[in-house]
Amino acid sequence: MRDSYYDQLDTIVDDLVALAGTVRGAVAESTTALLDADARLAEAVIAGDAAIDEVTDGIEERALLLLATQQPVAGDLRQLVATLRMVGDLERMGDLSAHVAKIARMRVPDPAVPSPLHPTIRSMAMVADSMIDAAARIVANRDVVAAARLEDEDDEMDRLRKDLFRTILSDRWEHGVEPAIDLALLGRYYERIGDHAVSMARRVVYLVTGELA
Amino acid sequence: MRDSYYDQLDTIVDDLVALAGTVRGAVAESTTALLDADARLAEAVIAGDAAIDEVTDGIEERALLLLATQQPVAGDLRQLVATLRMVGDLERMGDLSAHVAKIARMRVPDPAVPSPLHPTIRSMAMVADSMIDAAARIVANRDVVAAARLEDEDDEMDRLRKDLFRTILSDRWEHGVEPAIDLALLGRYYERIGDHAVSMARRVVYLVTGELA
Repeated sequence: MRDSYYDQLDTIVDDLVALAGTVRGAVAESTTALLDADARLAEAVIAGDAAIDEVTDGIEERALLLLATQQPVAGDLRQLVATLRMVGDLERMGDLSAHVAKIARMRVPDPAVPSPLHPTIRSMAMVADSMIDAAARIVANRDVVAAARLEDEDDEMDRLRKDLFRTILSDRWEHGVEPAIDLALLGRYYERIGDHAVSMARRVVYLVTGELA
Repeated sequence: MRDSYYDQLDTIVDDLVALAGTVRGAVAESTTALLDADARLAEAVIAGDAAIDEVTDGIEERALLLLATQQPVAGDLRQLVATLRMVGDLERMGDLSAHVAKIARMRVPDPAVPSPLHPTIRSMAMVADSMIDAAARIVANRDVVAAARLEDEDDEMDRLRKDLFRTILSDRWEHGVEPAIDLALLGRYYERIGDHAVSMARRVVYLVTGELA
């Protein structure tokens, strides 16, 4: 029975890591939809969010069943509860990429992001991508050292968001209020995606070291 | 032992309801700090968020201990897992009220919100207040009927947020980009506070009826 418990837990962790891959794809596609003003791709990301929610519901259901039937204690219990939390993080990241896609869709056929800001948004999306990838590997390998590096990437995300705000608030901003608001919200969405990746990594650190980061 | 289990669970639910009261206070005070450009009150809300986080950590710790020592099954297990999620909702609402306070603090001595928009922000804060209050009562009384009413309040919040966006995007907007961005983010923060209240209510509905709202 214990062996079966760990087998099932391993499957849940594998599915969590696979889901992180799906979410990475959603973030990348929503960014492409945004920068290319691609309505069809935006719709695909928005529709895909329901599929992500279904997968998260499924993982959650199985984690609860495992809790109920195997009644783990101590470290095993903590691991399962952490897993439930991380599923929640990935679900929110999926929501946030759908929010990015919705801003893209709202402005089609115009691009929501003025071209001088494409590099900043592309950098934020790349940092977010790298952070989700790192979080997935940290979960898969319980890699506490990589978790520390992830905090540096979070600082980079913070720097990019500040750059973005400086630009939209500068006297030389010439694109009007609407793109400024879109960009302020987009900056917040990418930043929150990064926050959830950090939160996943911190849960792993807590599981491994018993210390809250 | 079972009696002690339900006693401990009741205490956890009581603490969750009390925490909702604290969060309500934080939302109200951050709104006052925002509309009155009150730096001292803004600081108090920001400092108070750490206290909210400590309370949430404490509730979580006790819920985990109860899980580990009493190993509830079926409905009892679901209740405890739902409780852990609701603690997370309240923690995020606390964060969001600190975000409101930070916008207030950033613009002091100027008010972040131009006076024509005070009524809209005040209404959003009042709806948020009412939604947190309703969520707390729904948790305390497992009141599924009240949960349905909460969805109406969420529609009202949505309407207010749309109003706000229409105003800051209208041709007659004369307050510049900076307040527009502040307001877009504020709208998002109040809306998210309402979302978390809805999420708490839905978890109660799920516990009572077994159906996802």
